[in-house]
Amino acid sequence: MKPTGDIVIGLPKIKDIMAAADRIKGYAVQTPLIEHPVLNEVCGGRVLLKAENLQRVGAFKFRGAYNKICQIDGEEYPGGVVACSSGNHAQGVAAAASLCGLQSVVVMPLDAPRLKIRRTKELGAQVVTYDRDTGDRDAIARAISEERNAAFVHPFNDSDIIAGQGTLGIELMAQAAAKDAAPAQLLIGASGGGMLSGVTIAAKHFDPGIDIYVVEPDGFDDFSRSLKSGEIESNKRSSGSICDALLSPSAGAIPFAIVRDTIVGGLSVSDDEVRKAVRFAFNELKLVLEPSGAVTLAALLSGKLQTKNLVSVAILSGGNIDPDLFSEIIRAS
Amino acid sequence: MKPTGDIVIGLPKIKDIMAAADRIKGYAVQTPLIEHPVLNEVCGGRVLLKAENLQRVGAFKFRGAYNKICQIDGEEYPGGVVACSSGNHAQGVAAAASLCGLQSVVVMPLDAPRLKIRRTKELGAQVVTYDRDTGDRDAIARAISEERNAAFVHPFNDSDIIAGQGTLGIELMAQAAAKDAAPAQLLIGASGGGMLSGVTIAAKHFDPGIDIYVVEPDGFDDFSRSLKSGEIESNKRSSGSICDALLSPSAGAIPFAIVRDTIVGGLSVSDDEVRKAVRFAFNELKLVLEPSGAVTLAALLSGKLQTKNLVSVAILSGGNIDPDLFSEIIRAS
Repeated sequence: MKPTGDIVIGLPKIKDIMAAADRIKGYAVQTPLIEHPVLNEVCGGRVLLKAENLQRVGAFKFRGAYNKICQIDGEEYPGGVVACSSGNHAQGVAAAASLCGLQSVVVMPLDAPRLKIRRTKELGAQVVTYDRDTGDRDAIARAISEERNAAFVHPFNDSDIIAGQGTLGIELMAQAAAKDAAPAQLLIGASGGGMLSGVTIAAKHFDPGIDIYVVEPDGFDDFSRSLKSGEIESNKRSSGSICDALLSPSAGAIPFAIVRDTIVGGLSVSDDEVRKAVRFAFNELKLVLEPSGAVTLAALLSGKLQTKNLVSVAILSGGNIDPDLFSEIIRAS
Repeated sequence: MKPTGDIVIGLPKIKDIMAAADRIKGYAVQTPLIEHPVLNEVCGGRVLLKAENLQRVGAFKFRGAYNKICQIDGEEYPGGVVACSSGNHAQGVAAAASLCGLQSVVVMPLDAPRLKIRRTKELGAQVVTYDRDTGDRDAIARAISEERNAAFVHPFNDSDIIAGQGTLGIELMAQAAAKDAAPAQLLIGASGGGMLSGVTIAAKHFDPGIDIYVVEPDGFDDFSRSLKSGEIESNKRSSGSICDALLSPSAGAIPFAIVRDTIVGGLSVSDDEVRKAVRFAFNELKLVLEPSGAVTLAALLSGKLQTKNLVSVAILSGGNIDPDLFSEIIRAS
């Protein structure tokens, strides 16, 4: 018995990401790379948006979850899978497990958006809640894993998860090339860094000269600080940002090992800048973004990066937002 | 002097649409053809969505307006252009005129969505309002055209406008082929029929066997009735549907001549079905749709058409919706 599942701790290579792309084909959406003249005008250069809010389950997380879970042997893990997540990995795991004929349990914070909890259940998972400030979600998930003989699916510190998220990097580089665009810089949001690291491997494979920036909410900029100090830093708080999906206390060891000498640096954005980006996406782009999915757009719109006469690519990572919060944001002026 | 502008009244051919595609290249967005597993599951077949809500100005109308206006000689028409529109053609004309260095005046109904009036002004047009139930917008626009020596840009009864809208039909057929999909049927919303007829020419050029359906709001189904009677029928009312962009009193003569023997028939949808579709697009597709832009999705979701084991394509024509109305719709359950 392997009570914590087969967590793969090696560093993934481009061939692992390409293998993941084969596995998820036909299950994940090949999301569009969107270019909009209004955003180009605002930024004074070309901006390409990888719209992962249009992904299955409304966030990129399905890619990694499916790549991981489709390789899990149901006979070896009769309890299926267990995961902890603030909501998007939860939905990815629930959807992937259902597609693979496995049961799933997801440990979610009590203050997760109601929409995310409801959708995770609708996708077939059993949801167990915990208090974000006092509970230890990993401990709870591992206990469930042992009890049920279920494979633990880590949200980011797993080579298969990272390879799955990296598939969007392969896609976006090919899509940019098809638009005759050579991206100078790439903006990626991060919490634990699964997508950040997977996409970094893919993007650097196709263009070693591309500059990659991590974008985080103000006060949750552990990745930025870790890049400066060279060690994994932690956030002081575990709640208190509108970006509910980007509150992981610190970077994963595997993601950090991948990006520490590879990416240029970090940017952080305020809740207010994120709200403006969500509103811009509604008004101009006609896309539904959740706050965490809009941090890269927020960084661009608030001029945190030089974009003039450059090609910039930003990943819009998700769109799972409660209708009440979305209404509040789009009705403000 | 040609006070009503150079309205082109011949029937456009596929070569005219291809020429239009060349003209709008680099100005219009090549919008994605989106496929989402949840919608496929609901419909029991593949559904491909041409997301024209992601077009410049948030609706397909920019295509036709730019194709028309970029051919207008500013010396011949020193007053620029004049148009009448409930809001999306207005924005298309305003944006195209600004890009071409021409002035624009748009005649809009008093009850047009505030967002559409505001955005039309922001795009550089002067807006003149009229009462939808008592005023004659064409007469007002023609008077302005004569007074200012401005070219009149009809919203649909013009071969150049139809050819411009038809460009999205070329795109979607190529995009469907790239997804290894051979569409059996194509759903298109219609008011005056400019897009309907342009896309019909393009789609039938690439696949003469494709079945095309026009979708209209309940009570504004003049196209459906016209197809049955063989003559251009009118709607009794000029207001009273949530689909503010689909209230034209009757089909244009040129569009009707193109589609009368070509398309299969009509479907109509209720306001409530449209609201459900807008909500579905928010929750599942993460797209912002205006009611008029969601009629085809409404027809699919409410099962008005057999979709099982077929490939269906639906055009999502626009996403310009007031935040208050959008909030009301997404918060309802």
